[in-house]
Amino acid sequence: MGVAVSIDADFERKPSLDALTALVREDLLAVNGLIMDRMQSPVPLIPQLAGHVVAAGGKRLRPMLTLAAARLCGYHGGRHLGLATCVEFIHTATLLHDDVVDDSSLRRGLASANAVWGNKPSVLVGDFLFSRAFELMVEDGSLEVLAILSRASSVIAEGEVMQLITTGDIETDEGAYLDVIRAKTAQLFAAACRIGAVVADRPRSEADALEAYGMNLGIAFQLIDDVLDYSAKQATLGKTIGDDFREGKMTLPIVLAIGRGDDLERSFWRRTIEDLDQQDDDFDRAVAILEAHRALTDSVERARLYGDRAARAIAGFADGAEKRALTEVIDFCIERAY
Amino acid sequence: MGVAVSIDADFERKPSLDALTALVREDLLAVNGLIMDRMQSPVPLIPQLAGHVVAAGGKRLRPMLTLAAARLCGYHGGRHLGLATCVEFIHTATLLHDDVVDDSSLRRGLASANAVWGNKPSVLVGDFLFSRAFELMVEDGSLEVLAILSRASSVIAEGEVMQLITTGDIETDEGAYLDVIRAKTAQLFAAACRIGAVVADRPRSEADALEAYGMNLGIAFQLIDDVLDYSAKQATLGKTIGDDFREGKMTLPIVLAIGRGDDLERSFWRRTIEDLDQQDDDFDRAVAILEAHRALTDSVERARLYGDRAARAIAGFADGAEKRALTEVIDFCIERAY
Repeated sequence: MGVAVSIDADFERKPSLDALTALVREDLLAVNGLIMDRMQSPVPLIPQLAGHVVAAGGKRLRPMLTLAAARLCGYHGGRHLGLATCVEFIHTATLLHDDVVDDSSLRRGLASANAVWGNKPSVLVGDFLFSRAFELMVEDGSLEVLAILSRASSVIAEGEVMQLITTGDIETDEGAYLDVIRAKTAQLFAAACRIGAVVADRPRSEADALEAYGMNLGIAFQLIDDVLDYSAKQATLGKTIGDDFREGKMTLPIVLAIGRGDDLERSFWRRTIEDLDQQDDDFDRAVAILEAHRALTDSVERARLYGDRAARAIAGFADGAEKRALTEVIDFCIERAY
Repeated sequence: MGVAVSIDADFERKPSLDALTALVREDLLAVNGLIMDRMQSPVPLIPQLAGHVVAAGGKRLRPMLTLAAARLCGYHGGRHLGLATCVEFIHTATLLHDDVVDDSSLRRGLASANAVWGNKPSVLVGDFLFSRAFELMVEDGSLEVLAILSRASSVIAEGEVMQLITTGDIETDEGAYLDVIRAKTAQLFAAACRIGAVVADRPRSEADALEAYGMNLGIAFQLIDDVLDYSAKQATLGKTIGDDFREGKMTLPIVLAIGRGDDLERSFWRRTIEDLDQQDDDFDRAVAILEAHRALTDSVERARLYGDRAARAIAGFADGAEKRALTEVIDFCIERAY
């Protein structure tokens, strides 16, 4: 942890996913093959629409975590490939439903599936991928994996509903925000990592450690994602900046700024977030308020805290390329903020 | 089969679900308890919304099929209760997503969940129930059941996408229509019935027979549902009559009428179904055309054909209350048309 990369010091190597990608390159090729193969259907619109999302150049972060976690646990079989595919299918299904729920028009820099084909097939193809993920798990045959991923899926849905409820509610506090992102994002990171230990048939303590790594990494990842919505260049982020603000989402930067602001600012947030009555320059004003209260910087600091926890969670594993790669993932997730 | 119930002969007992309900009454009470219990979540909106759909007085036909099929197979354990609950959860999840996809405002005579809470929570609570169904299956521990229901779920999603594609396409033929209803409706009927044999650990031939019963019953059921959309009183149907027409759905009555109509009628269907350019009296005109071509009567005849197949599929089981109840279900599904 703590590779200090400042904006001035860009001669230092920025943390990236390169080490992880290099580590699991061959496995990831196999997973990409499985993804393309297993999203097929006699109904052509299904692979068309799913392929649009799947092929849109996602980072494949979650399946790579399964692959790397399995390697960290010394696994040498082939089951992790199918299970990493399940993880990506569940992720893709939630993306499709998220974009419908959020009325998003961009996803990873491309038009979102619902913007191209409409909400209806996006809902249904999400259902298809979700079901297909369970079909793949059944083929794998591990009830333990099925338990992990069915539980993760229902927790994700709970998190998404919680997020709907906190949206527009300026009374939302940091605890409620953390509950949302733990459920909607971190749970799948945690499950993806735990599966690596399960497939390698490692003791429960190692599975727990990898799950804790994934959970904390996922929280850090989402915290930074939520910061980026107020700070990233659109091209870098691959999605429209300011989406969260326009939707009235109560992410940590807003939660912190509201807690630190005066009555005048509170009425600004009430109008823009609660009533969604927004003018052209409101987003700029929101960013200015966030900066005045160090709400973005402090949200990044929170992410660092969870990043540190993630690093500590896997401290007990033997040093090596796998642990180094998984540690750099933490730094990558956080340093994206700069 | 073939209990001839004419409208003039209402002194004859109309086929109903009463025998089935009486047969599985205690089990169904237990299933209703499980449904209420297992749709709970720390997020109150989830049981609220799910409860609205689940408690809205559905017939519980699919879970009753699982219960009765298990009894027909001589099963005396308790696993069928949890599995019947899974079947109902999957059904409820698809209802929630269907109503979003169809923009329905009524479901079983009540406001649909999306009409009350909006599309977003309906999509997400559907996802939750779907995931919860898989959690329940994992608790049950049968990979065979998991295989049956994960397969059914992806086929249902395929069927729903196929239906989207055929909607508004007046070239849709009877084969394409049957593919849609087999996938979107009959597959879950078939799975619900097959599970009864699986849980009772009966030979494959019995599982196949019950699956064939469910598949043919499901086709008959959907055929009649599609007829009712042009003929039922709204109060009886519990949903808005004419929905399919307004949405441009290509159900069998329309498919038959288009095949039998002249150019003038074809231009009527093109305007109303393909272009969805509908006037106030178009629905009445549509019904008149359907009746002129005997399209509704002949659709009911098709349903009878599949009903006969369903009856033949379970002919090999020993006579008794279970077989009688399952046979009356067929008649009930068809005689609803009158």
